[in-house]
Amino acid sequence: MPHVTLPTDQPGIRGLFRFRPETAVPLNGLVEALLCGPSTLTRGERELIAAYVSGRNECRYCYSAHAAYAAAQLPEGMELVESVCADAGAAPVSAKLRALLAIAGAVQRSGREVTGELVAAAKAEGASDLEIHDTVLIAAAFCMFNRYVDGLATTLPDDPDFYTDRAKLIVANGYLGVLAKEATPAA
Amino acid sequence: MPHVTLPTDQPGIRGLFRFRPETAVPLNGLVEALLCGPSTLTRGERELIAAYVSGRNECRYCYSAHAAYAAAQLPEGMELVESVCADAGAAPVSAKLRALLAIAGAVQRSGREVTGELVAAAKAEGASDLEIHDTVLIAAAFCMFNRYVDGLATTLPDDPDFYTDRAKLIVANGYLGVLAKEATPAA
Repeated sequence: MPHVTLPTDQPGIRGLFRFRPETAVPLNGLVEALLCGPSTLTRGERELIAAYVSGRNECRYCYSAHAAYAAAQLPEGMELVESVCADAGAAPVSAKLRALLAIAGAVQRSGREVTGELVAAAKAEGASDLEIHDTVLIAAAFCMFNRYVDGLATTLPDDPDFYTDRAKLIVANGYLGVLAKEATPAA
Repeated sequence: MPHVTLPTDQPGIRGLFRFRPETAVPLNGLVEALLCGPSTLTRGERELIAAYVSGRNECRYCYSAHAAYAAAQLPEGMELVESVCADAGAAPVSAKLRALLAIAGAVQRSGREVTGELVAAAKAEGASDLEIHDTVLIAAAFCMFNRYVDGLATTLPDDPDFYTDRAKLIVANGYLGVLAKEATPAA
């Protein structure tokens, strides 16, 4: 049961967005810019970073959601997501993405763990400053979202298709689009 | 030296806001809602939670900034901020604020550390659902900001008056107001 009384029984962060619309808008604006906006990283790669960090923070809701969103947008699907989350260093991703995942893993522990060596390794594999910036901010943002969702003891969905259904919505509409659709409860 | 080349030598998160305006807007919208928006917690109390979490994450820039912003808005000033950050359980704050700081401290470690007991203790001291929600989200948000600022190795200010000067700006204009003023470099 969530720690606060929510206006809906929607699971995970969705109930929190309904509880506090004033913070839901900038929170969704942030993930929209980071995960859906123009970038030289694909949407699938960026969702993979979000899923990877959520897995390391052991946040079941966020991990399951962003793993589904990544799988829906990566040609290799869920198999690759699970492989990265089990052992990012050994997973069959590009050398650049592997180096960015190492940076994301450092951020998950602490910002001060991101060393010059990790950054130099990513640059040597062709990562741009913007890709490094966005990787750090995606990883940092999911250290927030994971704590938000678990810190208020939100619930998990009962429906086994919940995450793949949401993936279709997010892929088609983006985060702000879905928020706008869901801001008003269905009649 | 920051890990990426910033368009300015402004310290801390300010250089990052100039580097990536697309994320600066929602990030500032989030702290505006949480730290400056309508609330039954004072702006000083909310900045104190931000400073407390930043101190525990050992983020020097964010700690120094939000300690200054808290001190500028609390009648007891910096002495109280330092007392809370040294030992929140023993500091001379209200029982409600002490219980909320305990929740914030749990969030800093992991969302899953926020127990029903911590939440019940805050409610017993009169904390509302909204105050508990906002405490969790402020603490979670600073776990993001701290990682963002340190994960990109941003610099500290040289000017010893930097933080108190910024405190005056933030108190007077809020975060979005200051962002708008600083979005365009001075001529």
